[in-house]
Amino acid sequence: MTEPAPRHRLFIEAGLAAGTDIQVSEQQAHYLLNVMRFAVGGEVALFNGRDGEWRGVIAETGKKKVRLSVAEQLRPQAVEPDLWLLFAAVKRARIDLIVEKATELGVSVLQPVFTERTVMSRVGEERLAAIAIEAAEQCERLTVPELRAPLSLQAALTKWPEGRVLLLMDETGAGRPIAEALGELPPGPAAVLIGPEGGFAKSELDGFSRLTFAVRVGLGPRILRADTAAIAALTCYQAIRGDWRDPPP
Amino acid sequence: MTEPAPRHRLFIEAGLAAGTDIQVSEQQAHYLLNVMRFAVGGEVALFNGRDGEWRGVIAETGKKKVRLSVAEQLRPQAVEPDLWLLFAAVKRARIDLIVEKATELGVSVLQPVFTERTVMSRVGEERLAAIAIEAAEQCERLTVPELRAPLSLQAALTKWPEGRVLLLMDETGAGRPIAEALGELPPGPAAVLIGPEGGFAKSELDGFSRLTFAVRVGLGPRILRADTAAIAALTCYQAIRGDWRDPPP
Repeated sequence: MTEPAPRHRLFIEAGLAAGTDIQVSEQQAHYLLNVMRFAVGGEVALFNGRDGEWRGVIAETGKKKVRLSVAEQLRPQAVEPDLWLLFAAVKRARIDLIVEKATELGVSVLQPVFTERTVMSRVGEERLAAIAIEAAEQCERLTVPELRAPLSLQAALTKWPEGRVLLLMDETGAGRPIAEALGELPPGPAAVLIGPEGGFAKSELDGFSRLTFAVRVGLGPRILRADTAAIAALTCYQAIRGDWRDPPP
Repeated sequence: MTEPAPRHRLFIEAGLAAGTDIQVSEQQAHYLLNVMRFAVGGEVALFNGRDGEWRGVIAETGKKKVRLSVAEQLRPQAVEPDLWLLFAAVKRARIDLIVEKATELGVSVLQPVFTERTVMSRVGEERLAAIAIEAAEQCERLTVPELRAPLSLQAALTKWPEGRVLLLMDETGAGRPIAEALGELPPGPAAVLIGPEGGFAKSELDGFSRLTFAVRVGLGPRILRADTAAIAALTCYQAIRGDWRDPPP
């Protein structure tokens, strides 16, 4: 088969294998029928984070219903680098942007945290999960990042997994330039931590210096907003240590 | 003088020197009086892109009027790296984001371009100029990037300035990984070019290979939206070749 892969992609929960049938969700049926104006015979690419990417052909449509027939595999499963993003809950437009862009940039885990200066008390997990799925569909990922339940920063640091480096974005000027810090990082799993607008509290900064798994990193002479800092830190990681040596599929 | 610099910053056009008086614009007066609730004696930091940063003290207020008295210089003038961003006109939310983030990331020139697949015919220059100023005020820059009038991509490339390297963000997979390309760049002025959603046309890509000043660069295996690609490319430049070895002021 040398037909091109369908342009539109759908993330689904079900298992994918040749010849199986998939019932999409009502929302996905609405998207396929009313937004994309697909009919029987229309094609989309399907992925579920486990079984690679498959060609799906619309076999039957109904009111708020679409049944897809799974044809051949288009790509084997691939995983993103083992890179977590811990991000302080910021206001809605900016947290949405962080989740969209972190997904495009290939993060594997999204961990919202509450810091001392975090103003927001909720993050809107359902909305963020939908944003991550849509961004994964758009950017050709074969996975969706795992959105974890929000934690206090202290709880996240207390139960920190062994062997994972934490890159702390530090606005105080005490951090090492990011390209230099990344260039010397030992191989292995990593995480990036971005504070809230207003930065970390002094007690948090003092605590950081006792963390053996943490590296304080600076993002240059301008003060970046929290969303910009998240995007910039993930970008540098992927370009210098991650998978940006690989071309697009 | 060891008083801390005022937290709020204003970009103004007028020259700045100790003892001079500044009349701010009506819009800035509204911001100072009604949004920030400043009164006589309130302090802001002032910059104009030429004379460094100065302490401004509110000397007189009126209906839609604020007169500031310029006290001492807080920082001498500093310039951003000589880095241009050429970006295809994309839809409003994304072009606004490109201008905000490019300013935070320290770009010196913003050049909107129309490519073959550019859908938008206008860019909203006044709105973009206001966004750049606000981002510069927020991020502690002492300059505002120069927003140039939109050009066709072909016109921009035809009159390309001698000695300026053009980093072309290339989604086809033919580009070099960005960290590698930046690591080998000769010193000197640079520019980043980001295409529209949908990428460059084949005729444009063919033309690029004849440009002696251009380097085709890839941003990894995922397909980034135009705004993400702009932010990522500028981030990598600043981290690897730009001024991100300098701490915040």
